Amino acid sequence: MKLGEGVEAAIHCASMLAGVDGNSTMSGAAMAEAFGLSPSYLLKHLNQLTAAGILESVSGPSGGYRLARPAERITLLDIVLAVEGKEPAFRCGEIRQRGPVKIDASAYVKPCGINAAMLKAERAYRTALAEVKVSDIVANYAAEGDPRSIAASCAFVERHQRPQKSASSKQI
Amino acid sequence: MKLGEGVEAAIHCASMLAGVDGNSTMSGAAMAEAFGLSPSYLLKHLNQLTAAGILESVSGPSGGYRLARPAERITLLDIVLAVEGKEPAFRCGEIRQRGPVKIDASAYVKPCGINAAMLKAERAYRTALAEVKVSDIVANYAAEGDPRSIAASCAFVERHQRPQKSASSKQI
Repeated sequence: MKLGEGVEAAIHCASMLAGVDGNSTMSGAAMAEAFGLSPSYLLKHLNQLTAAGILESVSGPSGGYRLARPAERITLLDIVLAVEGKEPAFRCGEIRQRGPVKIDASAYVKPCGINAAMLKAERAYRTALAEVKVSDIVANYAAEGDPRSIAASCAFVERHQRPQKSASSKQI
Repeated sequence: MKLGEGVEAAIHCASMLAGVDGNSTMSGAAMAEAFGLSPSYLLKHLNQLTAAGILESVSGPSGGYRLARPAERITLLDIVLAVEGKEPAFRCGEIRQRGPVKIDASAYVKPCGINAAMLKAERAYRTALAEVKVSDIVANYAAEGDPRSIAASCAFVERHQRPQKSASSKQI
């Protein structure tokens, strides 16, 4: 089982965007620079977050991305599903119905117990991800991160954020 | 996030092997037939289960596979890790250390909070998988499965199991 690398990038970007002032945006290029990522690679994941309603993108010369809602209302599960898709990791192929053991379809109305057990475990995973908000990640970083790292990150955001004239839905 | 299809096959095979008499074995070809799978595809996963000490393989003309320990001591987590590997699904690339925000390595001694949160969720997943034993899958199937399906499966095992003369470690 493997999560795509985009998940790490997406959570870091959302956490960074939680730190911009008011309705400011930050460009994809700036975030790519912050994490040493290729801008085109990151753009794909920023688009996924935008499509999922986690980020909103502002066009124009001072455009970029910002959170579409407060960091308190964005969970790690929201981000993982936006990047990885909503399908469960375990995809039952109903192999119990293949081969000579197969009998009438009416015998397979109840879901396979193996599928049920795998999906139950996945619900535990998703529940744990849903318990962590982007605001928790930021608060934990502020409390536990190395002060030099925090200062450097804040200075980066200060330098790259782009103030906007229009109201942000983040404030609603 | 996606688990390989081998997980479904591996759990079904282990559950089927839980039903053989005594120290009998079942061939990979028979199990492949039972689930409509390619024998060479299934062999790969049976080898993974054998390497992990979940199955043991018996060579010779009446050889095949059997559980290496009682079904009560094999969990879904054992099988998932055998097939998918033990690495966590979330693999932190330490992108916090890339780019211009990076400072001295001593600032990154504490694990990244994002990595910690992702691994915590994965522990919840693994804990849930570890709570389900192959014997539970079999018991649930016996209690909840369609009687026609159970009869067909039992008849298949009866027909394909291969009694052995040597003692099985399963009995120890």
